[in-house]
Amino acid sequence: MREGFHDLEWLARTRAEGDVQAWLSLIPYARRIGVTAQADPDGEGLLFRLDPREENVGNVLLPALHGGVVAAFMETAATLDLMLAAREPRLPRIVDLSIDYLRTARVVPTLARCTLLREGRRLGNVQVSSWQEREGVPIATARLHFVLGDPSAS
Amino acid sequence: MREGFHDLEWLARTRAEGDVQAWLSLIPYARRIGVTAQADPDGEGLLFRLDPREENVGNVLLPALHGGVVAAFMETAATLDLMLAAREPRLPRIVDLSIDYLRTARVVPTLARCTLLREGRRLGNVQVSSWQEREGVPIATARLHFVLGDPSAS
Repeated sequence: MREGFHDLEWLARTRAEGDVQAWLSLIPYARRIGVTAQADPDGEGLLFRLDPREENVGNVLLPALHGGVVAAFMETAATLDLMLAAREPRLPRIVDLSIDYLRTARVVPTLARCTLLREGRRLGNVQVSSWQEREGVPIATARLHFVLGDPSAS
Repeated sequence: MREGFHDLEWLARTRAEGDVQAWLSLIPYARRIGVTAQADPDGEGLLFRLDPREENVGNVLLPALHGGVVAAFMETAATLDLMLAAREPRLPRIVDLSIDYLRTARVVPTLARCTLLREGRRLGNVQVSSWQEREGVPIATARLHFVLGDPSAS
């Protein structure tokens, strides 16, 4: 049996177990920039983490993370959070992304939390907040739309 | 002499020479995902290229590039294009990014071209189009705002 997002049984099981690491293992780029996820200790849902890595630096003088890494981190977080928070197993496909950069992202651990604003039959709308020192001092906020696909469709 | 974006002499010289590779060499993350730039053979300004790399894959089943890589590529392109196209040496600092995903980004060479829509005293507005097979069939479009900094300010 091939495991993967289009394998409904595998998707339902990993979802029931909250095994987000199994999903991340199928996303080479997320592993590459250093994204991990765990059950949110302070609430429901997931807390996402981006490891500080020199290769993710965009400005060597500050030094600061590349804005594109922050965007990719938030996009990964939104996708996985939506997969877990949706009422049933769905495969999100990104439609658009808007991100506001609020502060310089230093090369330290970066966290993110998502809010599912809307889960329609076809469309999901997710908001993401990302921070470093304190959650109340975000480095970026983002909102994303996804088309929600049926995982049993190939 | 330390070379870098805050070294006005170095910035002016690399700009005059169109040495975008010198700029890219200061952005570890851009090198990591495989961004290069060359003078646009079909026009003025720059043509950007993202190498196809397995590590940039977001969906192993399609396979497709991670949307975050495409976002990072377009953000890098917009930043460098603005540095070259601005009337004088400026250091762009990203304010926000909006991207529309139009088609699946396959793991093949990806190109991008930028248009500087506005260059004010403090704000720059850049539009980016990215494609794979044909420029007329974009995989994504983006628009970005930047605050334009004085490179001599530390």
